[in-house]
Amino acid sequence: MPSIDPENLTSFTISILRAVGASEEEAKIVADHLVLSNLYGVDSHGVIRIPEYVKQVELGHLKTKTVPKLVKETKATGVFDAQFGFGQVSAKMAMDLAVRKAAEYGIGAATVFNCGHTGRIGSYPVIAAAKGMIGIFGVKAESGWVAPYGGTTPYLGTTPFSFAVPTGNPEEPMLGDFATSISSEGKIRVLKSKGLRTPPGWILDKNGRLSDNPDDLYAGGSIVPFGLHKGYAINLLVEALGGALSGAGVADEFVGSNAVFAQAINIEFFTPLDEFKSRIGSLVNKMRTTPPQEGFTSVMIPGDPERHEMKKRLRDGIPVNDKVWGDIVAAAEKYHVRVPAV
Amino acid sequence: MPSIDPENLTSFTISILRAVGASEEEAKIVADHLVLSNLYGVDSHGVIRIPEYVKQVELGHLKTKTVPKLVKETKATGVFDAQFGFGQVSAKMAMDLAVRKAAEYGIGAATVFNCGHTGRIGSYPVIAAAKGMIGIFGVKAESGWVAPYGGTTPYLGTTPFSFAVPTGNPEEPMLGDFATSISSEGKIRVLKSKGLRTPPGWILDKNGRLSDNPDDLYAGGSIVPFGLHKGYAINLLVEALGGALSGAGVADEFVGSNAVFAQAINIEFFTPLDEFKSRIGSLVNKMRTTPPQEGFTSVMIPGDPERHEMKKRLRDGIPVNDKVWGDIVAAAEKYHVRVPAV
Repeated sequence: MPSIDPENLTSFTISILRAVGASEEEAKIVADHLVLSNLYGVDSHGVIRIPEYVKQVELGHLKTKTVPKLVKETKATGVFDAQFGFGQVSAKMAMDLAVRKAAEYGIGAATVFNCGHTGRIGSYPVIAAAKGMIGIFGVKAESGWVAPYGGTTPYLGTTPFSFAVPTGNPEEPMLGDFATSISSEGKIRVLKSKGLRTPPGWILDKNGRLSDNPDDLYAGGSIVPFGLHKGYAINLLVEALGGALSGAGVADEFVGSNAVFAQAINIEFFTPLDEFKSRIGSLVNKMRTTPPQEGFTSVMIPGDPERHEMKKRLRDGIPVNDKVWGDIVAAAEKYHVRVPAV
Repeated sequence: MPSIDPENLTSFTISILRAVGASEEEAKIVADHLVLSNLYGVDSHGVIRIPEYVKQVELGHLKTKTVPKLVKETKATGVFDAQFGFGQVSAKMAMDLAVRKAAEYGIGAATVFNCGHTGRIGSYPVIAAAKGMIGIFGVKAESGWVAPYGGTTPYLGTTPFSFAVPTGNPEEPMLGDFATSISSEGKIRVLKSKGLRTPPGWILDKNGRLSDNPDDLYAGGSIVPFGLHKGYAINLLVEALGGALSGAGVADEFVGSNAVFAQAINIEFFTPLDEFKSRIGSLVNKMRTTPPQEGFTSVMIPGDPERHEMKKRLRDGIPVNDKVWGDIVAAAEKYHVRVPAV
């Protein structure tokens, strides 16, 4: 398994994306995004996606050299048509707009439809946090995975949600980023590939019976929402924000890759930013220093697991497994992109 | 156990609140709120609170004839000092302001500090939903109950969150309303009073070991967040919105009753409202008609359990248990308020 220097991996990714037609700016945004996901340990949203994006460009589902179009704008809100371009570009643009609106009005929001895969959605609310704002972000993604609480039909997506809150340490905002299902589909796919069982309570078979056999998910079964009826409610809220408010569609009527809701709240318009940061800083400190429960080694705040992994990977390089690396190399060679020695 | 007609219960509540000094408007807002909570089956936030509010007025912690003061206003946001008045009054005012701001700017938000108990927080986002908006609401409440995920010290509150999304049926918005802990403290108190055990995974003893003995909560233990690390993240987000953004304070530095974050999103500024409602209506329909899982009799949307209970109670009256009724009657008699025959 090669372990790759992040800078080399980024420039290699840029070269592949440029070769399939991405503009310089698109290639840079997407490559930085994918490699940062790997650095954070979120390999499911890292360079593993390159062959998929290449394929989508080849099929015409993903358009290169595409500028998202602001089709509706009011004082504090905006709506983008991403015109089937890279999701990383339009999602960032939506959060940038929300931040600009919040800078003037105190709060701002934007939606995106016709949007490619937005990747690791923790990337976007931190744009707001870096400007002294609270960032909130939700995505309507592919349906067909998650059943309502108490139900059997997987009408819903894993409909992820993220947020970032400044803490006083600019390197370490509180950064929540998670699927509103009990597990992402990717994790279950990995268990299946290893011949392992799923933890109790994660999935239902096609008859709505609890199962620990990951094969059942792929035979008409479903994943349950996180946190019982409460997580189900949040899944529906994000469906409403990402799917209905954006105009893209909810549940199984939604076709396409992603649709986005991005929001920023300008803290200074409510309370002095320094006071806010000092309060959250003290909260963070309390969380991290509370003695751990039996079975835990430490208490973390949202974003800590990713940051811990990043420290390691900045030192040791990014491990990319042979299968994934082989697929990326194949995509590169098809477009005559030089493959770096690893 | 008396079963009381809602109108009689409301006018009795108004009389008690008036007698302890509430203005006509305060008494009406608070009484309507409490009785509606009972109608919805949320008895923990219904007329059971009357003796507590009376006591708080007597102690000077809760001020009557108090108008919340808008101490900071920007284009799309506002901050209220509730001046220790009834939380139901200032929370409603905050949501009303958020709605007015969203009507003009597309999105709006307000916070409240120095705020009395806000009661059932599902009451507030529905104000936005009734105007064709998405309402979002969070409260910083008393700390000392909830430990961080993986930790042992109950620095956090049960920090509840609510939202409402219009569905096309004005009587039936999606209405999420829940503590961000796995259970409210009140439910555990009820189990304790009945000599019952708590379900597995709900509470920790003071040493951070899982326990099913509700006494352990009251001996230095803690409640766990809902939905593992994901619900913990949402608890922290609501601490940040309700506690830090309002300037009231987070975790155990917060003293007082409640502090509020209220937000409204004007759907029409993003997408045609009729289309939005029809999409959410179709989503609701899909949820309700999916076959139930083993162990469930039906699939609901957020707000359905409360609405089912309301139908029953509008027909049969509101059951108030003898102990609660006795305490309310005692408070009424102290202030020479005539007690209705029940």
